[in-house]
Amino acid sequence: MLKLYYAPGTCALASHIALEYAGAPYEAVRLDFKAQQQRSPEYLKINPKGRVPALVTDRGALTETPALLLYIAQAWPAAQLAPLDDPFALAKMNEFNSYLCSTVHPYHAHGARGSRWSDDAAAIESMKKKVPQTMGESFTLIEEQFFKGPWVLGERMSTCDLYLYTIARWLKGDGVDPARFPRVADMAARLEQQPQVQKVLAAQQAG
Amino acid sequence: MLKLYYAPGTCALASHIALEYAGAPYEAVRLDFKAQQQRSPEYLKINPKGRVPALVTDRGALTETPALLLYIAQAWPAAQLAPLDDPFALAKMNEFNSYLCSTVHPYHAHGARGSRWSDDAAAIESMKKKVPQTMGESFTLIEEQFFKGPWVLGERMSTCDLYLYTIARWLKGDGVDPARFPRVADMAARLEQQPQVQKVLAAQQAG
Repeated sequence: MLKLYYAPGTCALASHIALEYAGAPYEAVRLDFKAQQQRSPEYLKINPKGRVPALVTDRGALTETPALLLYIAQAWPAAQLAPLDDPFALAKMNEFNSYLCSTVHPYHAHGARGSRWSDDAAAIESMKKKVPQTMGESFTLIEEQFFKGPWVLGERMSTCDLYLYTIARWLKGDGVDPARFPRVADMAARLEQQPQVQKVLAAQQAG
Repeated sequence: MLKLYYAPGTCALASHIALEYAGAPYEAVRLDFKAQQQRSPEYLKINPKGRVPALVTDRGALTETPALLLYIAQAWPAAQLAPLDDPFALAKMNEFNSYLCSTVHPYHAHGARGSRWSDDAAAIESMKKKVPQTMGESFTLIEEQFFKGPWVLGERMSTCDLYLYTIARWLKGDGVDPARFPRVADMAARLEQQPQVQKVLAAQQAG
């Protein structure tokens, strides 16, 4: 039985939904970030980075959303979450997920986690101010250049959609109107109707 | 013929070395960052993000180091740059590369590219001050927790070593003594002696 460690409102949602689509046998374990459970000695043994998601398998723990998404797609190929038989198409999937994790997620994180990059209170405040701009610019690039439609990679849903849906949920809180990106918003609305997504959202809210 | 767009001193070095190990037919195209060539209209058609690396293939361009590294490993499997036949081991490779791109590279970037995250000069200065701490802490985690030895993933060299070597070259400039991380330093010294690495370093210096 796999164990997925998550906290509500984090990027762990993407892997949680992927496990549900895969039909994988898993238990979702909620961490209380307000109580700093992600920094507890027990959890640091699982993920020394003190972050979520972490997926514990019978061979050990895996972390980092793009790695988890490809792992789940490869381990449960019947769910067709990735173009596994085409290295170029798979690279396009990984390219998109890597952009989200290396660029877009850090833009978002400068809103609430500025202390990662500066110890100065005024600097941390100034980082917050730029989040609407950087999130808006990166979603404009996604909307206009990267999103093929009707799904991120084209005709087939993939892990990219689960990850983009997860991060798009942060836009309002980041001061960006999601309606500025109608193709992304349309994908997110369709995805959110799926029973797999509904089930995960309900489970994370129930906690 | 593949075309790899790079600039010296950037993370494109990892993909450049991977292509050399793969024995792939490629041409390396140097961009002049001082002349802002990465922002030229011609290059933005190749990579709208205005960054390197970009690898142009006969099916289109690919970007993002973790995606390129896995693509090169899959397209030239004889080079054995990744544990392709084991989804869990491959996930450990992707997890490590994802950590470098999502966390360690952004730590480094706060030294010279703080304007990505703030428009305030004092804030940008304050970000620079924290780079030795964040790079030191992340390399401590790598040295003590993630690095199996003699290579990142254990007995076999993989794309993780090429990427870690590339980022470890930034430590001195980031105000961190590489000797603090002897296992990483030993790997980097061994890798640097390889003819593939020597050839790429010479090509990038000659540029």
